[in-house]
Amino acid sequence: MSKKVVLAYSGGLDTSFCAIYLKSKGYEVHTVIVNTGGFTQEELKHVADRAEYSQVASHKEINVIEEFYQKGIKYLIYGNVLKNHTYPLSVSSERFFQAKAIAEYANKIGAQAVAHGSTGAGNDQVRFDLVFNVLCPSMEIITPIRDLKLSREDEIKFLAENGVHINAEKAQYSVNQGIWGTSIGGKETLGSRETLPNDAYIHQVEKQESETIELTFNNGEPVGLNGETLEPTVLIEKLNDLANEYAIGRDVHVGDTIIGIKGRVGFEAPGALVLIKAHQLLEKHTLSKWQLYWKDQIGTFYGNLLHEGQFFEPAMRDFEAMLTSTQERVSGKVYVQLHPYRFVLEGIDSKYDLM
Amino acid sequence: MSKKVVLAYSGGLDTSFCAIYLKSKGYEVHTVIVNTGGFTQEELKHVADRAEYSQVASHKEINVIEEFYQKGIKYLIYGNVLKNHTYPLSVSSERFFQAKAIAEYANKIGAQAVAHGSTGAGNDQVRFDLVFNVLCPSMEIITPIRDLKLSREDEIKFLAENGVHINAEKAQYSVNQGIWGTSIGGKETLGSRETLPNDAYIHQVEKQESETIELTFNNGEPVGLNGETLEPTVLIEKLNDLANEYAIGRDVHVGDTIIGIKGRVGFEAPGALVLIKAHQLLEKHTLSKWQLYWKDQIGTFYGNLLHEGQFFEPAMRDFEAMLTSTQERVSGKVYVQLHPYRFVLEGIDSKYDLM
Amino acid sequence: MSKKVVLAYSGGLDTSFCAIYLKSKGYEVHTVIVNTGGFTQEELKHVADRAEYSQVASHKEINVIEEFYQKGIKYLIYGNVLKNHTYPLSVSSERFFQAKAIAEYANKIGAQAVAHGSTGAGNDQVRFDLVFNVLCPSMEIITPIRDLKLSREDEIKFLAENGVHINAEKAQYSVNQGIWGTSIGGKETLGSRETLPNDAYIHQVEKQESETIELTFNNGEPVGLNGETLEPTVLIEKLNDLANEYAIGRDVHVGDTIIGIKGRVGFEAPGALVLIKAHQLLEKHTLSKWQLYWKDQIGTFYGNLLHEGQFFEPAMRDFEAMLTSTQERVSGKVYVQLHPYRFVLEGIDSKYDLM
Amino acid sequence: MSKKVVLAYSGGLDTSFCAIYLKSKGYEVHTVIVNTGGFTQEELKHVADRAEYSQVASHKEINVIEEFYQKGIKYLIYGNVLKNHTYPLSVSSERFFQAKAIAEYANKIGAQAVAHGSTGAGNDQVRFDLVFNVLCPSMEIITPIRDLKLSREDEIKFLAENGVHINAEKAQYSVNQGIWGTSIGGKETLGSRETLPNDAYIHQVEKQESETIELTFNNGEPVGLNGETLEPTVLIEKLNDLANEYAIGRDVHVGDTIIGIKGRVGFEAPGALVLIKAHQLLEKHTLSKWQLYWKDQIGTFYGNLLHEGQFFEPAMRDFEAMLTSTQERVSGKVYVQLHPYRFVLEGIDSKYDLM
Repeated sequence: MSKKVVLAYSGGLDTSFCAIYLKSKGYEVHTVIVNTGGFTQEELKHVADRAEYSQVASHKEINVIEEFYQKGIKYLIYGNVLKNHTYPLSVSSERFFQAKAIAEYANKIGAQAVAHGSTGAGNDQVRFDLVFNVLCPSMEIITPIRDLKLSREDEIKFLAENGVHINAEKAQYSVNQGIWGTSIGGKETLGSRETLPNDAYIHQVEKQESETIELTFNNGEPVGLNGETLEPTVLIEKLNDLANEYAIGRDVHVGDTIIGIKGRVGFEAPGALVLIKAHQLLEKHTLSKWQLYWKDQIGTFYGNLLHEGQFFEPAMRDFEAMLTSTQERVSGKVYVQLHPYRFVLEGIDSKYDLM
Repeated sequence: MSKKVVLAYSGGLDTSFCAIYLKSKGYEVHTVIVNTGGFTQEELKHVADRAEYSQVASHKEINVIEEFYQKGIKYLIYGNVLKNHTYPLSVSSERFFQAKAIAEYANKIGAQAVAHGSTGAGNDQVRFDLVFNVLCPSMEIITPIRDLKLSREDEIKFLAENGVHINAEKAQYSVNQGIWGTSIGGKETLGSRETLPNDAYIHQVEKQESETIELTFNNGEPVGLNGETLEPTVLIEKLNDLANEYAIGRDVHVGDTIIGIKGRVGFEAPGALVLIKAHQLLEKHTLSKWQLYWKDQIGTFYGNLLHEGQFFEPAMRDFEAMLTSTQERVSGKVYVQLHPYRFVLEGIDSKYDLM
Repeated sequence: MSKKVVLAYSGGLDTSFCAIYLKSKGYEVHTVIVNTGGFTQEELKHVADRAEYSQVASHKEINVIEEFYQKGIKYLIYGNVLKNHTYPLSVSSERFFQAKAIAEYANKIGAQAVAHGSTGAGNDQVRFDLVFNVLCPSMEIITPIRDLKLSREDEIKFLAENGVHINAEKAQYSVNQGIWGTSIGGKETLGSRETLPNDAYIHQVEKQESETIELTFNNGEPVGLNGETLEPTVLIEKLNDLANEYAIGRDVHVGDTIIGIKGRVGFEAPGALVLIKAHQLLEKHTLSKWQLYWKDQIGTFYGNLLHEGQFFEPAMRDFEAMLTSTQERVSGKVYVQLHPYRFVLEGIDSKYDLM
Repeated sequence: MSKKVVLAYSGGLDTSFCAIYLKSKGYEVHTVIVNTGGFTQEELKHVADRAEYSQVASHKEINVIEEFYQKGIKYLIYGNVLKNHTYPLSVSSERFFQAKAIAEYANKIGAQAVAHGSTGAGNDQVRFDLVFNVLCPSMEIITPIRDLKLSREDEIKFLAENGVHINAEKAQYSVNQGIWGTSIGGKETLGSRETLPNDAYIHQVEKQESETIELTFNNGEPVGLNGETLEPTVLIEKLNDLANEYAIGRDVHVGDTIIGIKGRVGFEAPGALVLIKAHQLLEKHTLSKWQLYWKDQIGTFYGNLLHEGQFFEPAMRDFEAMLTSTQERVSGKVYVQLHPYRFVLEGIDSKYDLM
């Protein structure tokens, strides 16, 4: 009987290659796409179609947006987490929740192995491996891209030989979308000198006239937008839409990869950046000097460990307890002007304002 | 009608002077002694007698040992708080709870003023003032010793002139007793070169033969001694008794006073030191590297702010939340050898031991 | 013989009042304006004229720009210091150097007193007092504005009665200019809800077309602009001019005053913000993860203490030693796009780049 | 031609096995013992004899005591480094300097490989590997004990088969001696419950009567003992001798190994503990509150990274710069009473005393 493997699947070249390669090695391949907020229904349908075309044993979509918010984003807001003062951990924070969903699914269907398409150069491999080692420790972890080190052309050729034809035209930029932001890598980010060109970003300025929005926070959580009470995840998606019209939230992150070298990646994270900066302003009005000082320390370390895939580190629970405690009076409204490419924090209104 | 004043009262020269002085100024003087664990029934009776002898309007004893433990000592144990790596905050931590009890009593009896016998040189004045300003902001704070800067002889003379005769023989060492330790100041601690002589300490070695005791912790709290389940405050008193027979827990604290100069004070804190070191060993076995690292940071700062009388600083509540979270697995037994003047941590036994 | 007093003087209403008031009390008044980079020759001439009109005993201009850079700004750049993630300490950092120059001048001319026009509400009073207490401890410190608590109208009336007529039309915004930025206070900053209107800022957008500038750093210090080697202070002034054309560097700081309440002030600090962000990007490429982590900690605390006027705290020298050590490889070029109201960090070029 | 290998050699079973095993694989084996202060001339002679008996190609002794002090111990004193509040890094800090000496020697004699006898369970393997990867990156690293996982009996048998007879009687405790302390592992330290028995320690109480010694520090460095000016390394050896007579400096360290599990090891480090505590007391008298606070932070992190073998981390140089800056006024005399099993800090005498 062939062994069951659960494959983290996006429908792109690398994971398509993994699917066919694992089949060729005799595995029963079950593909999973974990939705952290970055996909339209159309895009999810497209991924499912590609899985079907690859004749995998089954394909599954798992939505973890709410869990991602409750166990991750919420604390990233509490802690105003911007890695290296810039990056809201758009992709690095969602990876844990994707890996967790995959591991749980693999356990549920009784798989003997899990597979992911990470390369050997970045942080994602570590994030996936760490979670799998904790949640499905007896399963084999298969990483064909990391192990085989094939060129893109080799992968396409192998797929063709196995009856799977994939559009050979490589997208110029590799894009990863989620509710907390979209990462964009490309030729400029491989060097240090150039920034991404305007058209590498997904969203372009569509609105020139500025507008002022009202964000309502309750104990640190975003709960209202322009007077409408919303679930935080719904609010973030709506805020992304509003701010995307102004092309707000673009920047480039330069950081240390877990394996010790520097990496660079562009991103657009309009909702994340507006929320964090608005939340931080509200805190400046409602928290004491030492609260601001210490939650900065804790938020930074929380973000660093999450970035490195260390969600299970017990200290993370202690950081969450402290950050939650600090939010007792972080309630009120924040007013933010949206302009093309930038936003301005106007002011706040809070019954806990210490002015 | 004369104004009511509540006076923090110990029955010593300074507070006796304050009682008579305030009466001479037309105040209706209500004395209060706040018990933080350092008094025998006999000693409390003696203080009450002295108050009666001074013909104050009323005298009251308030026991805050349990509150001191629940809102102070407990977190000092969680945080392994040793100021400057030495001092368990024996006196500085109890002052807040004394001041709070006095302020609440003053509010209750409708006093117009509160008074304390602090000098202008140390930290106690700041600790009292801070609490009174928050809890009874409209009351006058009267500090005769700080304001008048009288010599000891002047005070004795004034008392005699007012019909109150006090033993003029000054105790060589000024002693302050509480459940979390006893401070001892004297001529050696006014300089930097000498340590306290053996007989300046209250307790002397009475037992030469070493014994091993067993301490049980549950979520970081001390709950058992030699197999007997005890309330933490009872346990601490019993442990003080056991360790005092070996004269364990002596040291000298050198630190910065709140007003910016260095100060030096001897102490004996047998229970505090044994409990903190035992608790810390249990944590080394049950917490992760980053938990140990961060709770050290937080514990140190918590201790520093408490030492400076900043109990009401909102960040203190955040520190407490974090420290509490870290204690989830700090449960088990710790074995401690008691020897004359020292103790040795033998080992631990815990189901959460990570060895 | 009348007593000599040295008065920190700006020529505005408050310090004009101080000059006349001190004269009326029999002092021989010596005014000093300390230039930290915020004045044109014309403005300095105007201040000198006003001093002459007030018939003070002497007037002196002291230029401390170079000292401000060498002992202050340099470390603010090394540490990427942005108070509360926003404010480059434009005014708070220069106050120390102003106070120091005044104290040294007072010592030099053998004054018996120093005077400053600070109110009792803000941080400046503390900054001045701290420095005077250290550098001219035996001199009287006179603070008429803080002590008399007069209204603006009272001051004008008093001046008129003493033959000094001052333009009664109050500038709507109180402005303080220096090389490291200009602070702007006004009716909006007294509340929490509104931001400064566009025309409250000194500089308006004069250039729509973006340009890319090249900044050269050597061991963390800014030494070149668009290929031209410049003294750091000259470079900062030039960069201010370039970026002011785009109205770059506006924001509002919300912070804790030294005396414990919240305060809010607008500022424009184009050169400071561009330099700090450019420098920080260069560090992301050239420093290790732990260097970035720790210099953040040290830079933040250095900034907090400087903000609170604690330049003489010995730990400041230790922070400076550490920050200096971190800059060994922070050399290279940074490319920055200037756009109306914002700037974009393009990339860097450094032989120490760890990419 | 056979390949040259440099073997870190102690003459014990494991490294004797390595020598013979490497010879059997055709290597030309050059043994090196790196002396960090823990050896008598007799012991060094014994090791050389064993090397000769094993017929290695050459044997070399390298003394690194001075380098260990200048680049390691000095900063451990400045930082008062006690890992987990207990352990002066006696062994973990010396490993780096041993590995460095071996790598440099291997480079000098043109070896193709370096070998060490570390097991796969502890921290030493990581410390050696990290240094070799940096200093002799092209050399093969050979670790027979880690790779072969042989039992002690297997090793003895293999040696006998190759004509090398070794005393089969295993020492009950594994001991590692150096100037900064001696580590002692044995059956008790494999569990959590028991401490080392009295006779597991190398030194026993030989003197009952207490004595007071005088230590002189100059800018944080120990330079005098009982009035005699000494080189720091000589002073430490003498102090070890003095305190060993009282069996001072015993304790058990519980910590996290680099590979993520808890470990426990006994030690006796008389000189290290007395010096660190004496130095710390002098600092309490001569440094400001914030200096004490921050050098604690930096010292702790410096110690943690050194413990983990990260000597080359660039932040270490920044920590050293800061720690050095803090020592400017840490000069004076400290008086310490030596008693059986314990010491008491009497007091200090310093012209920089802030009392």
